Amino acid sequence: MARVNRVAIIGLGLIGGSLGMALRRRRLAKTIVGYSRKPSTLRRAKQARAIDVGTTNLRAAVRDADLIVLATPVDAIVPFAKQVARYCRRGAILTDVGSTKVQIVRQLERSLPAYASFVGGHPIAGSERRGIEAASSDLFTGALYVVTPTPQTHRGALPKVIRFWKPLVKKVITMSPQNHDRLFAATSHLPHLVAACLAGAIPAQALSSAAPSFLEMTRLAKSDPELWDDIFLSNRREVIRALDRFNRQCHVLRKLLTGSRRAELRRFLANAKAKRDALHDS
Amino acid sequence: MARVNRVAIIGLGLIGGSLGMALRRRRLAKTIVGYSRKPSTLRRAKQARAIDVGTTNLRAAVRDADLIVLATPVDAIVPFAKQVARYCRRGAILTDVGSTKVQIVRQLERSLPAYASFVGGHPIAGSERRGIEAASSDLFTGALYVVTPTPQTHRGALPKVIRFWKPLVKKVITMSPQNHDRLFAATSHLPHLVAACLAGAIPAQALSSAAPSFLEMTRLAKSDPELWDDIFLSNRREVIRALDRFNRQCHVLRKLLTGSRRAELRRFLANAKAKRDALHDS
Repeated sequence: MARVNRVAIIGLGLIGGSLGMALRRRRLAKTIVGYSRKPSTLRRAKQARAIDVGTTNLRAAVRDADLIVLATPVDAIVPFAKQVARYCRRGAILTDVGSTKVQIVRQLERSLPAYASFVGGHPIAGSERRGIEAASSDLFTGALYVVTPTPQTHRGALPKVIRFWKPLVKKVITMSPQNHDRLFAATSHLPHLVAACLAGAIPAQALSSAAPSFLEMTRLAKSDPELWDDIFLSNRREVIRALDRFNRQCHVLRKLLTGSRRAELRRFLANAKAKRDALHDS
Repeated sequence: MARVNRVAIIGLGLIGGSLGMALRRRRLAKTIVGYSRKPSTLRRAKQARAIDVGTTNLRAAVRDADLIVLATPVDAIVPFAKQVARYCRRGAILTDVGSTKVQIVRQLERSLPAYASFVGGHPIAGSERRGIEAASSDLFTGALYVVTPTPQTHRGALPKVIRFWKPLVKKVITMSPQNHDRLFAATSHLPHLVAACLAGAIPAQALSSAAPSFLEMTRLAKSDPELWDDIFLSNRREVIRALDRFNRQCHVLRKLLTGSRRAELRRFLANAKAKRDALHDS
């Protein structure tokens, strides 16, 4: 039983493509319309069974849609949403999948017309690969979905967005855009920054015999720089805070090493281990 | 066809246990003798098919061995090697699997009697788990083995140690203890430190909804503090150097973020990505 009549997905990259594939496989939407600027992407999205209909015309993509999912890079979400609001029908619901929320939600609450309801959201899933080629109908299986309403969010729209995502993910959680950005600065943006610094710090002669731990700790550095500079800069303040908190830990550790303070070093490592052991590996 | 008649493995943890299991499965030694202080470990090692004979008596373990592998935590390798040298027969070869090499090799070259040949080595494999329970006959499959001879290393012993490890690993590489410690400070010890700092820096409220990237980037923090403080402190100088090189990258990145210097930030990330893309994921 389809839960939505007509879904439009704006941007058919890793996230947009995977969303379409997951919706189709579970028959959660009657019709999935995909928008991309490139006809070649539309072709590949159709082959991957991510969309039923593809178009390079934004107006045609969203005109009759009940739910419109903005799945472009973070910096393109607000400009696309503004255009979509001009073309979509009254009562249509807009939502996004951007990795940062404060800027996007604030700008859209200020500028969208009242008849287009926007609800910010973020499925916590990804890959260092990008594009429809990397998309998978399983990308969201086992993932969290974070929805970030504010006092301005349309009351009727919020439960519809939650109902839309619920069958696709392991768990839906609700938090403010501010809490979202603080949380994911620490648990997603910071790890990406640290991986880039680790990869950048490797001496050339070490490249040929990097240990497995190095490969694991730098995998995220393979992510697309064009996607991630957007994410870092649109959450700049919280990212810098998380980096500073991390750097303070590095500073403490360096002091324990220079002083050969074995007992304190062991306590430092044991404290980190206890925190990590408390997390569930998925 | 067994390549060695009698191998003694001193310490039956993750590495010692996995070595025994791999040797037995491939029938590379006629007899594998295991030494542990704990009878319960010997029992489990026998059940896991890691050893043929187990003993808590070090003299009995090494007396008739042709090759003796020291597989204890880093700080116990030198004291054990000195005892072993007193008990082993003339012409026996000693080698170790310690994660740092300069201190161990230097101390043993100074103190071992001439008739006991020591060759330092390090299989580049591990797990955040420890003990015979985590051992596996596949642990070294696909791994590098680094052997670290010096001008003092016995000429006849080196090829024997290489021949011993070769069928167990993907590749054997030779380098000086100094190069080993510099290299693995950057590609193994530093990633472990960084994972501990990341785990230590996570705010309590983030614990319940950590992103997958955070789980990946902190997995190494689950490693045993008692093993790793030894490793960090026995390679203190190179570890601090690697940490400083990493911190300089963090410092550059912070400046790009505070200044919203998008083009330079993108170049920074692209440079890290290019370095990482050049590495082969195993």
